[in-house]
Amino acid sequence: MRSNWVQTVRLEPPSLNDNTADTERLLSSLKTRLNSDHIHIDISLQRTLPDILRQHHYHVSCVLFKDRNRWLLAGVAGAEKNDPMAGLAVDLGTTSVAVRLIDLVSGDVMGEYSFDNPQIDVGPDILTRIHYADQKGGLEHLNRQIIDGLNQAISILCRKCDIRPIHIYLSAVAGNTAMTHLFLKLSPRWIIREPYIPVVNYPGAISAEDLGMNINQHAKVFMFPNVGSYFGGDLIAGILFSGLARKEETAILVDVGTNAEVVLGNNKWLIACAGAAGPALEGGVTKMGMMAGPGVIDSIVISGPDKRFDIHTIDDQPPKGICGSGLIDLASQLFLHGIIDIRGKFKVSDGISRIKFKNKDDMMHLIVVPADESATGEDLTISQADIDSLARSKAAMYTILETITTSVGIDMRQISDFFVAGTFGVFIKPKSAVSIGMMPDLPSENFKPLGNSSLGGATMILQSQECADQISDIRDKITYMELNVNQEFMNRFSAAKFFPHTDRSLFPSVKI
Amino acid sequence: MRSNWVQTVRLEPPSLNDNTADTERLLSSLKTRLNSDHIHIDISLQRTLPDILRQHHYHVSCVLFKDRNRWLLAGVAGAEKNDPMAGLAVDLGTTSVAVRLIDLVSGDVMGEYSFDNPQIDVGPDILTRIHYADQKGGLEHLNRQIIDGLNQAISILCRKCDIRPIHIYLSAVAGNTAMTHLFLKLSPRWIIREPYIPVVNYPGAISAEDLGMNINQHAKVFMFPNVGSYFGGDLIAGILFSGLARKEETAILVDVGTNAEVVLGNNKWLIACAGAAGPALEGGVTKMGMMAGPGVIDSIVISGPDKRFDIHTIDDQPPKGICGSGLIDLASQLFLHGIIDIRGKFKVSDGISRIKFKNKDDMMHLIVVPADESATGEDLTISQADIDSLARSKAAMYTILETITTSVGIDMRQISDFFVAGTFGVFIKPKSAVSIGMMPDLPSENFKPLGNSSLGGATMILQSQECADQISDIRDKITYMELNVNQEFMNRFSAAKFFPHTDRSLFPSVKI
Repeated sequence: MRSNWVQTVRLEPPSLNDNTADTERLLSSLKTRLNSDHIHIDISLQRTLPDILRQHHYHVSCVLFKDRNRWLLAGVAGAEKNDPMAGLAVDLGTTSVAVRLIDLVSGDVMGEYSFDNPQIDVGPDILTRIHYADQKGGLEHLNRQIIDGLNQAISILCRKCDIRPIHIYLSAVAGNTAMTHLFLKLSPRWIIREPYIPVVNYPGAISAEDLGMNINQHAKVFMFPNVGSYFGGDLIAGILFSGLARKEETAILVDVGTNAEVVLGNNKWLIACAGAAGPALEGGVTKMGMMAGPGVIDSIVISGPDKRFDIHTIDDQPPKGICGSGLIDLASQLFLHGIIDIRGKFKVSDGISRIKFKNKDDMMHLIVVPADESATGEDLTISQADIDSLARSKAAMYTILETITTSVGIDMRQISDFFVAGTFGVFIKPKSAVSIGMMPDLPSENFKPLGNSSLGGATMILQSQECADQISDIRDKITYMELNVNQEFMNRFSAAKFFPHTDRSLFPSVKI
Repeated sequence: MRSNWVQTVRLEPPSLNDNTADTERLLSSLKTRLNSDHIHIDISLQRTLPDILRQHHYHVSCVLFKDRNRWLLAGVAGAEKNDPMAGLAVDLGTTSVAVRLIDLVSGDVMGEYSFDNPQIDVGPDILTRIHYADQKGGLEHLNRQIIDGLNQAISILCRKCDIRPIHIYLSAVAGNTAMTHLFLKLSPRWIIREPYIPVVNYPGAISAEDLGMNINQHAKVFMFPNVGSYFGGDLIAGILFSGLARKEETAILVDVGTNAEVVLGNNKWLIACAGAAGPALEGGVTKMGMMAGPGVIDSIVISGPDKRFDIHTIDDQPPKGICGSGLIDLASQLFLHGIIDIRGKFKVSDGISRIKFKNKDDMMHLIVVPADESATGEDLTISQADIDSLARSKAAMYTILETITTSVGIDMRQISDFFVAGTFGVFIKPKSAVSIGMMPDLPSENFKPLGNSSLGGATMILQSQECADQISDIRDKITYMELNVNQEFMNRFSAAKFFPHTDRSLFPSVKI
């Protein structure tokens, strides 16, 4: 994909008959090229123009970015210089931040890198950080952490790709609303307080220098807009990346985390909804729960008459915990093999030899990996409370899906593209999610894992102006549906807490 | 005149039914108010919005500025706070810098102040500074000088007007092209080198912080555009101030200095021309020449049979020198009383008792003030070379006027409004300027002194959006006529070097 952010122009050199100023000379050529009257050149960039234009005989390559209707010049270099012109895509995750370098001329990916969000020091969850930001100097500290972390990552990635940070002229950053606020040093205080008001929804393109980013001094940083406090730029990036808003056929995009975020729509309309799904799917609650990583159980198959657990861990390391998708797999297998009932309760009395329970803290625990096989030297167990928590999470997810599809009169079992964002989407087995009634009963091939769709969307912005043009469209097309937790919702939720659901006809493929 | 840069808006407070972000909430109200979709709020100003909006119950006063088609928010304060909202008009002169505070709400002038341009330390003339700017660190030094000088003046003026610099939200700055460059830290190198190319013609509005101006952090600074290297923003401000571009009837505006700058036009067209007039009129050449100030001769009348010199000095101080307008008065009186002939040569042989000459450095000097009457204790004299220099300057002025009016087929003796800019315009006696053939033979009342028209134009911008709107119009309407120093020009110039002119019929009112 050839990027169109770089324009190479050859200007007529000035003469006594044409003594237009340097800035206006360049602008005039770019205006014709871009067919736009709205092109802006910062005064700091204007300061460099006389030398660059003359040194390169008025033959220069310009990096431009289109911020809604306005073009911004982000850099100028001699057309025959072979210095790279790069863009930096950033997925500003609460837990992990991923960066990717794009060659702005070819559109090729040059390399990528990821690091833990340094704000984890303040608090692993965003809520702790939002409260911390309210303290004196708190916002500045959190902002410094993420900017410093990003600058360090830029330096590492540039070395890896053999370019210098000044060769980065554009950046596109996608994060949730709170992370976007912390990144822009905007107070997130009112995001979490009724009526949940962000400082800004559409920050647009900002000067890298104003943000403290160590890239080219004149570089522009595009921030993905958010729809509201609970629907951030990361999801807009995901919508872009999935192609949801360009398809004739109605599709669904879900992002599963502490919040379950759902977008339903097509090239005519988009409807979005988000609701608390609880932390069960993020590995935040179960004692053995953790983020996907080496040694983490991502898949479990129960087989044979003695109900043997075949466990798979990431990188085949000794098991030390379980991630969200592993937990769904486990629950699904427990249910399909009758170890939990339709209420999600352990059937301890069945007394199947291979299944070991233990009672601890007055609660039943199922031993998933015995101490002598685990990496920790302790039993890896899952408790009744863990299963109950998962049941609530999966019910919340399904209820949100049901609510949003019902609101527009669409049967979710007719959806052909069901996009699942994030690492979760990559690891989850659709069949397992269907078995426990978390996702609708669609054929496995209808579920499309997106991987890091925030980073993917940010990458697309840097590769193509057409993609950037879509952002305002997507943003403005979205109708955000507030989840009204009324009696109808509660009834749906109660029904969805069962495995897979009280209405078995919704899940014909689930046979037990 | 009520300014319209301040808009007071009362926003609907956010609610669960309307959870638009703070920035977009304010933007939406301003868009309706200003009937524009293009309003920009800097990220740094956005950072302050949540607190300001909530503290003042969503009832705020906003300072806005319209930069071509785009509105820029320059400040927000509680509507019921009575903190002043001020604008700073700046005349960025090569020699002297004048600043004036305007109340942005009432449009009233609050106070003014002026100071010597600190760059005079580097060189009194702009050419020296341009060369100096080319040396390592030279541009930065000159920029620092003018910014520091301005900041000091702001601090003094604010104290005088009992406001704080943070209460200044807008500034409008008018200067010649080179001064504008030095102020913006743009290299003026190519302004003086063929083909005379400025870095920028239309800098527009720039953030005060980026320029290092100590006013409100979010303030915007409007720079008057220039037409080219030799036609600067100070003249655009002068055109605005004179009203030249709004009148049906064709009028002339002249700015007399080392360069004679002339604009001819009306509400349909504007034609501009500039040419070297020599330093005679700026008090730069004659030994006794100096800027207008206390003790400087601004008027001379020769009377009686013994041709007595009645000398008037500014503030009635003992005479110490002569300013441009005094020199014109002197030359006019010398000519009208037959002390110089039509070639401008001293008629030494006449031997009028009161007129004293002395020969010094092989050249004839006329003693204007004898040593015992002067402030310096030395004779104040004017030499033949001084008169010759003046003759060239006044001929250049007249020739430019003749060239520009002839080019559009207008008889300059039909001009009813002949605006004369600057201090020069205030002090000059039109009759004297006509007598020596520097200005066309118009009735005295047709000559309209403008005073500091740069400062006046800058003030108008801060008082009214309509005035700001005119700037692009004026700038784009101007046709700049390159002075073609061809045979015809030289013939005109030679004729105009005579007192008042070889063609006496052009000056019927001049009787000798």
